[in-house]
Amino acid sequence: MTRALVAQGGGPTAVINQSLAGVVLEARRFSTIESVYGACHGVRGIALEDLVDLGQETAQQLELVAATPGSALGSTRDKPDVKYCQDILRVLQAHEIGYFFYIGGNDTADTLRILSQEARKAAYPLACIHVPKTVDNDLMCNDHTPGFPSAARFVVQAFAGANLDNAALLGVYVAVVMGRHAGFLTAASAMARKYPDDGPHLIYLPERVFALEKFLTDVKATCERFGRCVVAVSEGIHDSSGVEIVTQLAKSVERDAHHNVQLSGGALADLLCEEIKSNLKIKRVRGETLGYLQRSFLGCVSDVDQREAREVGEKAVQYAMRGAQDGSVAIKRTGSYAASYELTALTNVTGKTRTMSDAFISADGTDITDAFRLYLLPLLGSGTPEAHRLRSNSVEKILKKS
Amino acid sequence: MTRALVAQGGGPTAVINQSLAGVVLEARRFSTIESVYGACHGVRGIALEDLVDLGQETAQQLELVAATPGSALGSTRDKPDVKYCQDILRVLQAHEIGYFFYIGGNDTADTLRILSQEARKAAYPLACIHVPKTVDNDLMCNDHTPGFPSAARFVVQAFAGANLDNAALLGVYVAVVMGRHAGFLTAASAMARKYPDDGPHLIYLPERVFALEKFLTDVKATCERFGRCVVAVSEGIHDSSGVEIVTQLAKSVERDAHHNVQLSGGALADLLCEEIKSNLKIKRVRGETLGYLQRSFLGCVSDVDQREAREVGEKAVQYAMRGAQDGSVAIKRTGSYAASYELTALTNVTGKTRTMSDAFISADGTDITDAFRLYLLPLLGSGTPEAHRLRSNSVEKILKKS
Repeated sequence: MTRALVAQGGGPTAVINQSLAGVVLEARRFSTIESVYGACHGVRGIALEDLVDLGQETAQQLELVAATPGSALGSTRDKPDVKYCQDILRVLQAHEIGYFFYIGGNDTADTLRILSQEARKAAYPLACIHVPKTVDNDLMCNDHTPGFPSAARFVVQAFAGANLDNAALLGVYVAVVMGRHAGFLTAASAMARKYPDDGPHLIYLPERVFALEKFLTDVKATCERFGRCVVAVSEGIHDSSGVEIVTQLAKSVERDAHHNVQLSGGALADLLCEEIKSNLKIKRVRGETLGYLQRSFLGCVSDVDQREAREVGEKAVQYAMRGAQDGSVAIKRTGSYAASYELTALTNVTGKTRTMSDAFISADGTDITDAFRLYLLPLLGSGTPEAHRLRSNSVEKILKKS
Repeated sequence: MTRALVAQGGGPTAVINQSLAGVVLEARRFSTIESVYGACHGVRGIALEDLVDLGQETAQQLELVAATPGSALGSTRDKPDVKYCQDILRVLQAHEIGYFFYIGGNDTADTLRILSQEARKAAYPLACIHVPKTVDNDLMCNDHTPGFPSAARFVVQAFAGANLDNAALLGVYVAVVMGRHAGFLTAASAMARKYPDDGPHLIYLPERVFALEKFLTDVKATCERFGRCVVAVSEGIHDSSGVEIVTQLAKSVERDAHHNVQLSGGALADLLCEEIKSNLKIKRVRGETLGYLQRSFLGCVSDVDQREAREVGEKAVQYAMRGAQDGSVAIKRTGSYAASYELTALTNVTGKTRTMSDAFISADGTDITDAFRLYLLPLLGSGTPEAHRLRSNSVEKILKKS
């Protein structure tokens, strides 16, 4: 008899609690698991022995929590080193934890890699299973990652609405999208288009070099063609030497514990708008940052994402119960469209990030391809709202003043 | 036999096309109305004779457009003077328009006031009916205005999600909400709270003077109490002399044609976050601006708002057909909760804005009252998503390190 522990790391998503529910409900099926604990705020909660007994949750409540965005156990940005993992291991041993399921991105997988090593060194039997999660969709070995489809759906609904707003009042609209070095979430904005002249008309991905002069030329040409311009910009756009555009433009830059540049805040959108206003002399230029709503908004979720996030949690438990010592659950695509799962080595997903393939990006670098449309469409789920237009005929002019 | 014309002015909303459909479908019922035209981009489209024949729309398509956010006819920020209204009048006369329905806020109503005057001077029979619309909820004589309930619902769902995100990763979160000089939309954020420690913990309204020192003290106290802090801030907050906080903090300020300070962009959120970081030494401080999504997001709407926005359009036509020369359709509240409509004089809604009454604001000035909760709750509509939490019991500590 042993115990299972589950924790959540990194940025919350709309479906990370589905994975939590998947782990807990699946682990309850196995009589060899005495109880299922949860760690508050990820590894930090383990180090502080801040644990909860999830066996006292009702299945009813777990289902309600599963449908709620955010990380119900709390999360952390801590990235443990060997010493930190040894501290954690002592807590796991004291509480007779034999299975540890950690839901998160590649930093989370790396924590499990170190912890699994230390457990072996200490000859302590511990299964360390990584459950994938990231809105950035940048995990290696995965067709896509839970959290991304729901965030992509938010981006689609946001741009579909922003396009209508811009069509009504004209001018230029620039919105900055999450995703760091991966353009998937920004590229998803293209799915907001329905009619041929719908925005976003320009999409700037971190997979391509961003040049301010080219950007201004693109915006000008789009305004001349459509009388307006909707632009999707990744927070991670950078120049040819890899320097992020926001760091060039912003006064001060905050770095978090992982030494990643802090990309949130409204600086990038505002500064790009300033450039458009001052260089192109366009009066109505509006910029905004879609921000935390992309991953947290209550009431925008892909049902496909919900289902898969639940399944990666369930599969994690199944792999552990079948004897896996460590590994990461990966989502594969079969046909069009079904998902299958496999366990891959932790080292296959740690330390690297996946970006968009060239096949997904148009030749001019400011749009996506049909290959990306076919990739994303089934992930967005059912019931995506649709925009409709008037199709009225013009009334013949009588005064002919214009 | 005469024609009816409908137009949309000012910022789009999630339900302004419901009012459009209400006018068009209701006008079709009357055999004395030969046809229903629409003006592209509000009064600007009239001046340019840029009109469409809405009689060629199917009812099916009008229903789909009604459910779509944005201003389907296009909108304008033009605020016509007497000369501009005389130009418009010539176009209306040329096209034998006898009824003009203009959907918008108080600037839109003022255009109708001038136009109605000029029509009388010219002895041209023209009914000028204002159909109310504004997410700011700041129209006089109205219990509330179409567009506000859906925008409020977006704000509620945004803060409910942001609160969960903040609870997972802790720190301070500041989001700036629309509304200019009226705090209704910012105050709506309070409805995101479910559990006693849920955010927003602090709400700053333009109906109260904003003092930076008090703000910092409030944030510090909240962090000490809850270990985190979620703040809702109106874009229109100002100091004791009426100077808007964003203008104090931002480098440059753009003014639009109405001589209102341009409050969009991420400046206010970013600058407040800077103050918190530098004065309170809190590491994780995140700010964002909910921005245009509040009025444009595709897929977040109050069904009560949809219904009422449709009805104000229908009622506008009915008042005109019963002989009204001019006026503004106003929403009244009866019981809890039903809406009724009446026609009020244009001058009752022009040139002034409504703000939150003292009964809606808590004594300390950073929260709302139960009176406001009762006011807003029925407007948010059915099916608002709800957040749920784990209720797990703590596991007893063994190592007792902390």
